[in-house]
Amino acid sequence: MELRKTLIERSENMWRDFLPHVSIDCVIFGFDNNALKVLLLRLKDQQQWALPGGYVRKDENVDDAAYRMLKERTAVDNLYLQQFRTFGQTQRSEGFFADYPDDLWHKQRFISIGYYALVNYAEVTPVKDSVSAECEWKDIGDLPDLMMDHRFIFNKALVTLRKQLNYKPIGYNLLPEKFTMPELQKLYEIILDKKLNRGNFYRKILRYDILEKLNESRKGGAHKAPDLYRFDAEKYRDALKNGLQSEW
Amino acid sequence: MELRKTLIERSENMWRDFLPHVSIDCVIFGFDNNALKVLLLRLKDQQQWALPGGYVRKDENVDDAAYRMLKERTAVDNLYLQQFRTFGQTQRSEGFFADYPDDLWHKQRFISIGYYALVNYAEVTPVKDSVSAECEWKDIGDLPDLMMDHRFIFNKALVTLRKQLNYKPIGYNLLPEKFTMPELQKLYEIILDKKLNRGNFYRKILRYDILEKLNESRKGGAHKAPDLYRFDAEKYRDALKNGLQSEW
Repeated sequence: MELRKTLIERSENMWRDFLPHVSIDCVIFGFDNNALKVLLLRLKDQQQWALPGGYVRKDENVDDAAYRMLKERTAVDNLYLQQFRTFGQTQRSEGFFADYPDDLWHKQRFISIGYYALVNYAEVTPVKDSVSAECEWKDIGDLPDLMMDHRFIFNKALVTLRKQLNYKPIGYNLLPEKFTMPELQKLYEIILDKKLNRGNFYRKILRYDILEKLNESRKGGAHKAPDLYRFDAEKYRDALKNGLQSEW
Repeated sequence: MELRKTLIERSENMWRDFLPHVSIDCVIFGFDNNALKVLLLRLKDQQQWALPGGYVRKDENVDDAAYRMLKERTAVDNLYLQQFRTFGQTQRSEGFFADYPDDLWHKQRFISIGYYALVNYAEVTPVKDSVSAECEWKDIGDLPDLMMDHRFIFNKALVTLRKQLNYKPIGYNLLPEKFTMPELQKLYEIILDKKLNRGNFYRKILRYDILEKLNESRKGGAHKAPDLYRFDAEKYRDALKNGLQSEW
């Protein structure tokens, strides 16, 4: 009952400070240990998980509101953030609050503006807020049940990532500064949702001349230590202007 | 003063029937006579032009509202419609209504959801509404002054078209069923905002095997009658799944 109590207590101030009918949902991606992850939270008293999100202050730009939420949830400033779609179906969230008073802030119809963020996993500290029981990274291959239409929103974000892989600095923002070729290939395979031939991938990605091979290798492990690479930020940016022209 | 009178008269019913703070702006593209055009309207008593748009009924899906507005403005059903971005800056429209009463529907802050539409120019009959003095096609190379942030919204739509040219059936929806190769090239040149080499363009576009050459040619004109083509809808759709992999 803790969630219910908090939402009802807050409702009047929410009506006073925030723009009604408009919400934001954030799909925050991170890459760790060869897995693509998304930051989810579980509200108190709930089984299902949710995308982090929030509302827009009456005098706040929508983009600024999205940056504010991301900072609250990750403790990181200036993340790579892209609006990708606005979700405007009726009854997408209202049903969840059916048993609440009709004047509850959360019970109104919300049009939700979807943003995706790409973060360097190692730099992020997931932060719970006062209505959450948990806030955790989850592997996108093994997602828990999500509330409302959040699974649909997540799917749209992932498809957007796939479409934009050749046009936006997605690898650059998800990988640590130094990475191995197998790590980069794994990231592409997860986003594209298909297995790539190792030789073809190496040849194509090297042909774009956007990677810099370092005189270092990844220590540890039984195998021969793989070479480390990093993106040449300027060449990468230039190459993305026309798109990486490849089917992968 | 006619616009002012109408807006004030309508305001109370707008508050009753529509979702506050949420609006839609539509960038409707058509292609005619080798020019890319956009459908604009001029409100009564105003010098500047505007994108057609409107509001979302309290019980209406946002996509349905966009289709409804397009039908009202073009008298055509089932147009090709894509949401492309939501515009959430503060003060993007409020200033226009500075001299109006504070409780005027139009004077509130609006978050505007941008849609672009692609139409077959020949099928569209531009329709004025009761607050418009004119509704006309304008050449995108020679646009009049636009009110509020509508020039910004238009620019974002055009950039979206450019980015999606290899991924969405843009030519298919803008051209008449039968067209000549110079017409197709001209459309690509306008959207990409660059001159293309004729031989390269023909070779690339034919290589995708998405066009069907007809046993007909365009009659009239001083030059040799150019051949007519049409899209092979199925092959085009298949090709777009992976994107047309070309820099043009």
